[in-house]
Amino acid sequence: MDRDRCTELDADDPLADRRARFRLPGERIYLDGNSLGAFQDAVLEAVLGAAGTWRRDAIAGWNAGWVELPSAAAGRLAPLIGAHLSEVAVVDSTSANLFKAVVAGLALRPQRRRIVVAEEEFPTDRYVVSGIAELTAAEIAVAPRASVEDALDPHTAVVLLSHVDYRTGDRLELEEVTARVHAAGAVIVWDLSHSVGALALDLPRADVDLAVGCSYKFLNGGPGAPAWIYASRTHHDELATALRGWFGHAEPFEFAPDYVPAPGAQRFHNGTPPILSLAALHGALEVFESLDLRALEAKTASLTDVFIRLVDQRCPDVEVVTPRDPARRGAQVSLRHEHAHALIRALAARGVIGDHRPPDLLRFGFAPLYVRHVDVYNAVEVLADLLETDAWDRPEFHARERVP
Amino acid sequence: MDRDRCTELDADDPLADRRARFRLPGERIYLDGNSLGAFQDAVLEAVLGAAGTWRRDAIAGWNAGWVELPSAAAGRLAPLIGAHLSEVAVVDSTSANLFKAVVAGLALRPQRRRIVVAEEEFPTDRYVVSGIAELTAAEIAVAPRASVEDALDPHTAVVLLSHVDYRTGDRLELEEVTARVHAAGAVIVWDLSHSVGALALDLPRADVDLAVGCSYKFLNGGPGAPAWIYASRTHHDELATALRGWFGHAEPFEFAPDYVPAPGAQRFHNGTPPILSLAALHGALEVFESLDLRALEAKTASLTDVFIRLVDQRCPDVEVVTPRDPARRGAQVSLRHEHAHALIRALAARGVIGDHRPPDLLRFGFAPLYVRHVDVYNAVEVLADLLETDAWDRPEFHARERVP
Repeated sequence: MDRDRCTELDADDPLADRRARFRLPGERIYLDGNSLGAFQDAVLEAVLGAAGTWRRDAIAGWNAGWVELPSAAAGRLAPLIGAHLSEVAVVDSTSANLFKAVVAGLALRPQRRRIVVAEEEFPTDRYVVSGIAELTAAEIAVAPRASVEDALDPHTAVVLLSHVDYRTGDRLELEEVTARVHAAGAVIVWDLSHSVGALALDLPRADVDLAVGCSYKFLNGGPGAPAWIYASRTHHDELATALRGWFGHAEPFEFAPDYVPAPGAQRFHNGTPPILSLAALHGALEVFESLDLRALEAKTASLTDVFIRLVDQRCPDVEVVTPRDPARRGAQVSLRHEHAHALIRALAARGVIGDHRPPDLLRFGFAPLYVRHVDVYNAVEVLADLLETDAWDRPEFHARERVP
Repeated sequence: MDRDRCTELDADDPLADRRARFRLPGERIYLDGNSLGAFQDAVLEAVLGAAGTWRRDAIAGWNAGWVELPSAAAGRLAPLIGAHLSEVAVVDSTSANLFKAVVAGLALRPQRRRIVVAEEEFPTDRYVVSGIAELTAAEIAVAPRASVEDALDPHTAVVLLSHVDYRTGDRLELEEVTARVHAAGAVIVWDLSHSVGALALDLPRADVDLAVGCSYKFLNGGPGAPAWIYASRTHHDELATALRGWFGHAEPFEFAPDYVPAPGAQRFHNGTPPILSLAALHGALEVFESLDLRALEAKTASLTDVFIRLVDQRCPDVEVVTPRDPARRGAQVSLRHEHAHALIRALAARGVIGDHRPPDLLRFGFAPLYVRHVDVYNAVEVLADLLETDAWDRPEFHARERVP
């Protein structure tokens, strides 16, 4: 693997034209799209459009497209997970949607009370489950991610798992794990925050019950963009929602005193939708229109593969934590190094943006719509140089920032 | 009351200079700020600022002000309710915050399980409570708003009430009702959606336990702006939160597996805050800086008083539903008319924007920062003319819109 091969791969990239839609941060190589996706002009145009409607039409904006905006955003998101429109709502934060999904999962198995969650799960997922356990009679079983299935028992109602691990980038086999959870009589809730927009997902084909995901990583919806929740059509007849509000009602503008859920996943709406943020996300998702998801996942595999090969060649003392089989990883590669934090800051000072996850991981995300193979090459060259020269070992690179 | 008197009142208005910050919808008289507050250039500037940071700095935006933005927005909101910064979080929708507040209220009274809610409450409030009752062992008692106190009993844990009724505009006495709820051993949750930004609120002085409110009405944060939640400092040592997430953790960037709540109301955060929407709200709240809340409430009282007097003079057949005592109403006046819907649409066609609440109410909001007394005069002139000429009785005004 060398620079020329990377240039060739970029020349053959069927997604190469999408990169022009993004405005990347200056001359930097941005390998942190797994944390916050890059900006597009289409986002700003969408926000300015919504703000202009507000200025011009005020309340009449609701009849000039706003009330359909959650559904329009869901319509652009649904193909990325293989879903029918009725199965998706774009709403709230990932945390709030996890709450709704796990509660809905518990209601699907009323004779069971146990929630199984992976020990390595993103902290918010564990916090959400702890809140549900305090509020209801549910109990929690924490098990290592690699052997979660051993924790399944006849009391298990819900299993909550991240498809791609936020620290190591390792990916579980969606269809197989779902099948094994079903074989144990339980319901699966997948957190697809680190998968959607980078991998080819087909939730109905995998028979997934419930799922949630983030929209500000590979979906590029902007910091804190509205998240999404998926509920399979097979469960719509008995889909419980605990977090209610008028926009999740079957007839919100009837102002009826009693709650009647909206059809399908629409019931997961509660308050008035956040129009400015939704417009931003709707604009951001345009870049995915007519996209071949297999090409997307192939690009993800290629970028991460090239990165791993180059790290092996150029930084032999660094441990690659992420699985080498592309089917077992997401769009992220993590490296282990004792001085991960200082290295990440030194890389940033040299224009290569990744992030640090305590204690010793360097995390690099390879957003397939705007990262090139040549960016990967250049990033590894900088990393190799820093390691060879110990140039990362300066006081300013050891100083901590508020958000790591 | 006549046009000249209205002009005099406007000339003497100490808040008159704030109107210039707003961009009202064209030449129209906008009396729907109780539904969606008006646009300000400061909002657009704030959103463009956040979008520019995203474009320029990408992930580094979190260390360039974003992580402090929820607290900065709360800092501008807190004075409007007399709160200490630690008592307020700007987060999620009003519906989600109602859920959190009622759940927290129940946890403050673990030996009691009854939630009392007013029959006339905004539907979302009742939907939220129904969701909580299904999830927990709580039971619901619905009582008429005027006699909610008769429903209090030794089983009552929480009373949920809107300070100002969304249909009639009638206002309850915050301090007195709170005291009576406390006398019954229960906790009060106030919905202040139709109060904040129009009335002088001092929640600590009124000994309020918990409160929530909307930010897109008199706070002008934009359609679906992040809402807020208040929890009195007296309850911070035992403040339960069921809807958890990493931004409500004491140390979000430690990625700790176990949930430790952030101090005070900050624990009501869950997911990553929506930066674009929060920036919009933060910009919108600037107009309230250094504002005298008594002057704000006085202007509200004066506008609604002039409206009621003029309606009495010019439209004697129309029933004023809203209380005539300014201490018993908010910033809204509702009129009853059999053809309310057609009248509202005919008014809109003549440039006067109010709204209709089924079956027979015309609703007019008087946002004290941008409505003038002369606007009130002109609006009533149009209404009187429509009624005198029956010009509202045309087919196009009877047609229904999706959002009323």
